[in-house]
Amino acid sequence: MKKGLFITFEGVDGSGKTSVLKGVNDLLLKNGISNFIITREPGGSKITEKIRSIILDRDNIEEDIKTEALLYAASRRQHLVDVIIKRLEEGVHVICDRYVDSSLAYQGYARGIGIEEVRKINEFAIGSLYPDLTIYLDLAPEEGLKRIMKNRENPDRLDVEKLSFHKKVYEGYEEVYKMFQGRIYKVDAKQDLLSVTKDAFNKVYEFIVQNEKR
Amino acid sequence: MKKGLFITFEGVDGSGKTSVLKGVNDLLLKNGISNFIITREPGGSKITEKIRSIILDRDNIEEDIKTEALLYAASRRQHLVDVIIKRLEEGVHVICDRYVDSSLAYQGYARGIGIEEVRKINEFAIGSLYPDLTIYLDLAPEEGLKRIMKNRENPDRLDVEKLSFHKKVYEGYEEVYKMFQGRIYKVDAKQDLLSVTKDAFNKVYEFIVQNEKR
Repeated sequence: MKKGLFITFEGVDGSGKTSVLKGVNDLLLKNGISNFIITREPGGSKITEKIRSIILDRDNIEEDIKTEALLYAASRRQHLVDVIIKRLEEGVHVICDRYVDSSLAYQGYARGIGIEEVRKINEFAIGSLYPDLTIYLDLAPEEGLKRIMKNRENPDRLDVEKLSFHKKVYEGYEEVYKMFQGRIYKVDAKQDLLSVTKDAFNKVYEFIVQNEKR
Repeated sequence: MKKGLFITFEGVDGSGKTSVLKGVNDLLLKNGISNFIITREPGGSKITEKIRSIILDRDNIEEDIKTEALLYAASRRQHLVDVIIKRLEEGVHVICDRYVDSSLAYQGYARGIGIEEVRKINEFAIGSLYPDLTIYLDLAPEEGLKRIMKNRENPDRLDVEKLSFHKKVYEGYEEVYKMFQGRIYKVDAKQDLLSVTKDAFNKVYEFIVQNEKR
């Protein structure tokens, strides 16, 4: 039943995902491709918004990391059913800001639950609906940390924790990349924003055009 | 680290679980056993209450059954961490009204996701923390349906759907019983309340006394 293409964007915090996606959106429209949407969890449905608010509520300091992983999977499932599958079946391409790879890198690797464990609950949620293409904005930790710390003169304990977590997320993405090399396309995110955007756009454009021809 | 015993109560709606649990509570106290708690999900923590409110909100008519199963697993995980594990480690026996078997019977079998699928996400949530003993209030569908329909003269379409779902839940519990015969103790719930309560109490009492001796 699926007719549209399913494309996701991934990367560590600070890799420029939001700006790049905005640029890719504009370039696609300029180049005559308009049958696509850009979405991200929670994606606007009432249920997913509520789930997200539980995850992000900083009062929930006692929230367990496995509870968190299950809540992300629940939100992903509902977003998939409400938004992604519907649009794909209509023949619309769906570009999603973060998807299952984020959970594998963040909860699976960086939080230490284990990538395979987190993969299991995510496959319960998504079935076989992996992306057709994933654009991974690859930014080495040294560079990402520099960007994050730009405005900090004297990093405190919390900053140091953040840095070590950031490094783990990067390592997590490296593991995920090894698992799904065929699907994941690396873009060098150390370049200036314009170059990163162009590289990401070129790959997405080429992928859509090639697949629409078939 | 676990020192207390972990006992769960299971059964279809209408099997009398709540009344029986109240009776078992009183009989345990009368017979000199007081180092136990009776709990049920969501169990009073802020996060689990919020998750439960999403599941039960009838406005969420679009809620997917797999989303629901993931939310139950998330709530179970948090309840386990907040309440069950803490008390067990203190040496307190924990009696829980519904646990993983409910998800296997309701979401896994009756809703059609598949028992093995639902078991996977629940094992992500609970790890190896299955109950030491489960009291299953066994009530044949004909009897359960009679109780549910007691006050209905002309069942409508919704009632008929309810009945067919009730039957499926019963079949689900039969499957779960086959999987975990060593852990699950069947009580004939067709008897009058006093007899059901006594049977359930006798098993729980004996189980606690035998294990405390060791």
